[in-house]
Amino acid sequence: MPPARSSTNEAAQGDLAFLSIDQAAKLLEKKEISPVELVEACLARIERLNPHLNSFITVIPDRARREARAAQRDIARAKWKGPLHGIPISLKDNIWSRGIRTTAGSKILADFVPKADSDVAARLKRAGAILLGKTNLHEFAYGVTNDNPHFGPARNPWNRERITGGSSGGSAAAVASGMCLASVGSDTGGSIRIPSALCGVAGLKPTFGLVSVQGIVPLAGSLDHAGPIARSATDVCVILEALAGEYPRPAARPDYRKLRRMLPKRLRLGWPDEYFFDRVDAEVRRLIEDAVAIFQSVGAEIKKVKMPRLKAALLPATNDIALAEATLYHESQGYFPARAADYGDDVRKRLELGAQVSAVDYLRGLAKKRDAEADFERVFERADAIVAPSTPIAAPRIGETEIKIDGEKETVRSALVRLNRPVNFTGHPAISVPCGFTQDGLPVAMQLIGPRWSEARLLAIAAAYENATEWHQRRPPLPIVWSG
Amino acid sequence: MPPARSSTNEAAQGDLAFLSIDQAAKLLEKKEISPVELVEACLARIERLNPHLNSFITVIPDRARREARAAQRDIARAKWKGPLHGIPISLKDNIWSRGIRTTAGSKILADFVPKADSDVAARLKRAGAILLGKTNLHEFAYGVTNDNPHFGPARNPWNRERITGGSSGGSAAAVASGMCLASVGSDTGGSIRIPSALCGVAGLKPTFGLVSVQGIVPLAGSLDHAGPIARSATDVCVILEALAGEYPRPAARPDYRKLRRMLPKRLRLGWPDEYFFDRVDAEVRRLIEDAVAIFQSVGAEIKKVKMPRLKAALLPATNDIALAEATLYHESQGYFPARAADYGDDVRKRLELGAQVSAVDYLRGLAKKRDAEADFERVFERADAIVAPSTPIAAPRIGETEIKIDGEKETVRSALVRLNRPVNFTGHPAISVPCGFTQDGLPVAMQLIGPRWSEARLLAIAAAYENATEWHQRRPPLPIVWSG
Repeated sequence: MPPARSSTNEAAQGDLAFLSIDQAAKLLEKKEISPVELVEACLARIERLNPHLNSFITVIPDRARREARAAQRDIARAKWKGPLHGIPISLKDNIWSRGIRTTAGSKILADFVPKADSDVAARLKRAGAILLGKTNLHEFAYGVTNDNPHFGPARNPWNRERITGGSSGGSAAAVASGMCLASVGSDTGGSIRIPSALCGVAGLKPTFGLVSVQGIVPLAGSLDHAGPIARSATDVCVILEALAGEYPRPAARPDYRKLRRMLPKRLRLGWPDEYFFDRVDAEVRRLIEDAVAIFQSVGAEIKKVKMPRLKAALLPATNDIALAEATLYHESQGYFPARAADYGDDVRKRLELGAQVSAVDYLRGLAKKRDAEADFERVFERADAIVAPSTPIAAPRIGETEIKIDGEKETVRSALVRLNRPVNFTGHPAISVPCGFTQDGLPVAMQLIGPRWSEARLLAIAAAYENATEWHQRRPPLPIVWSG
Repeated sequence: MPPARSSTNEAAQGDLAFLSIDQAAKLLEKKEISPVELVEACLARIERLNPHLNSFITVIPDRARREARAAQRDIARAKWKGPLHGIPISLKDNIWSRGIRTTAGSKILADFVPKADSDVAARLKRAGAILLGKTNLHEFAYGVTNDNPHFGPARNPWNRERITGGSSGGSAAAVASGMCLASVGSDTGGSIRIPSALCGVAGLKPTFGLVSVQGIVPLAGSLDHAGPIARSATDVCVILEALAGEYPRPAARPDYRKLRRMLPKRLRLGWPDEYFFDRVDAEVRRLIEDAVAIFQSVGAEIKKVKMPRLKAALLPATNDIALAEATLYHESQGYFPARAADYGDDVRKRLELGAQVSAVDYLRGLAKKRDAEADFERVFERADAIVAPSTPIAAPRIGETEIKIDGEKETVRSALVRLNRPVNFTGHPAISVPCGFTQDGLPVAMQLIGPRWSEARLLAIAAAYENATEWHQRRPPLPIVWSG
């Protein structure tokens, strides 16, 4: 095949695969592109890039093509289902998909094929989205490096020697590299926001309870959330609309066509002195400060806010809760300790730790929720959202277990989790959006955290930031690899 | 004072103090008796009997007399508040009463005077009831013998060498012996029903959540209930009406004047083969069978029902939950282990055990609730209520720690708790009503267990049984003791 022609195809496929959902939906509805073209563009990229990035554990091209043809017929007959009709997506591989292997990134479930869809899979199917495959994750979603001992590490599209972050690393990398337009991940201690931040895409952990986790392999029931990963706040919004259950007030329901209207007239952003800016890499801090300056330039008011009880409330409460609930699940399924040898070392060790948590410590941890919630609720009396770094560092190297921030050592796990876990505990929604790059060319992201059920406003604030910047439009410098 | 005259007073006081609330309320409303007379009758009995029975930890005669005079004035001015106006009652001493010492039967709280009323105390006050004092209980409600190391054992009015049962032993004994017309206890593993059964009075553990436990010293938050102890189902109903919060369906709300109407036309009673009749003393079993025969004679249909999962679901789930939640509370208050030496041996040992329960076992226990609930819910598709013994034995001797049933040894604690704890776990309502006496003259009781929020029907069934029998009208053979 002559290079020139391939190169054109490559570019064309890339252009299609990097469409926003909003753009793609308009083109699909007007029949200017077809679901078949769009799916083929993504499948071609998966074929070329997945061997390098290891984002997907399972790809289902035949089924995706069948569904694309069906979508094409339906749209041709004016049976357009809405903005996700014909849009190629992926799902983290701990989200049950009927008839499609769902490994949870584990040896134990390596051959497990669910007989039913999770609520998430069913809702996206109903909205017309086309599933391309199941993405890599940290084993059983129980870790944040996505260095998976059974399926290999997921690799960061911006630098393949770097981790994607996790546990939804494959999802974030697949979205960042144009192998699909969006994905759904799960988030128990940052597992949507961490890889979104480290791979330069947008990821939302919704209010606890808004998106059903039925049919998702649990990690820790009281902290588990599911939510979208996509390339912009608007795309996140489209996916969220399909996933979300009822809102207590229907007016709070996000609508991607009306995001601008959901922006507060007088935007007030909270800047927490403590906790969220403790031990943050200087380069990351500077980029968050730049982001705040951009918010100010578009009229936002920045308020310094206090969260004095947060730190004491969180540690070690959330760790005890996560450890105990995870071990409970693995014991209840007969996986642990029966099949202890089939786990990676890190996950097995954590399951062992979980068995040692006392009920009193667990319950004491739960009781601290009120303290943590109180800090947030007080801030939200004065601010529409809190701005914080998503992670205190950019993506570490694969295999690295310890990093230094300001000369101080910390485990990679602790560094990546600590700014994310607060809202798994309290249930507040948080979106991670790219806000720049380190000098090494690695993405950095900020978190916007809002009151319960304020997803619409958070997305509007994120979209306003995206309108004023171009970070979210950057594409990773991926190798062009000839297939065949 | 000449014996003849005292004897007359004695009889008159006894007659007043043994009035049903319903009768007393009618007489009070018509001004045929006064609250002052009624309170004096009870205070006189307390003065004479409490040194023998040790039912009260604190008596507040001055305050009770003041309130009685105020009630008398109000009633005289036609400001009758309802059936509890001017009725002398007591409260278990773990129920906060503003300005009145609330010891929880402990050394640790021996001098504690709450600054606020519990919801229970506030509701009874609002209904016009007159508090005479605070009743003896097992230390911190954490046991079922009421052999209190700090305030002495509560003694059974039917035989003072026998335990009252607990933990609300003082309440049940005070009601049984005519020292007050009714009381309120708490029930975490049978603490209302056990002493009611052993002392020959009626006691109701309502549906979980119906009666607020705010302001009651907690034992185990997920199992704690509060409810009435009185001398008949009708009296229990009057107290419950004052204590109860909202019903999901207002039509389910009990009304003591309409109890007959709440009786199902075609009464179906479930007789569980397993669990509730395992290891039950032959004399107790025979009396329950007699009670069932009486139900049949008034037209009830008896259905044998299965509860196959109950036993496995309960043990050791409920024990782990109670142990862990109790230790959590005592640790959170700084009582344990800081003041370990200030607890009785049995309670301290249990608090130590609670610290050893693992979070995984605790959570696994909670997960078993569904199994236990399923057994009950299946029965309630076919039956209006379950009939079971309240306890498998009549009152053991004070100091006895082990008993024999059918030649098999069992701890007193286990024997008294095991038929009661199921519905603390599942939250179903249960009433204990007297159904006869052993050859030794000790009361025996049956439990009627119903679907959630079915208190009205349970009380109607219990009242129908009382109408067909006279057990609830028997008075204990108390010594007549000359005062002064």
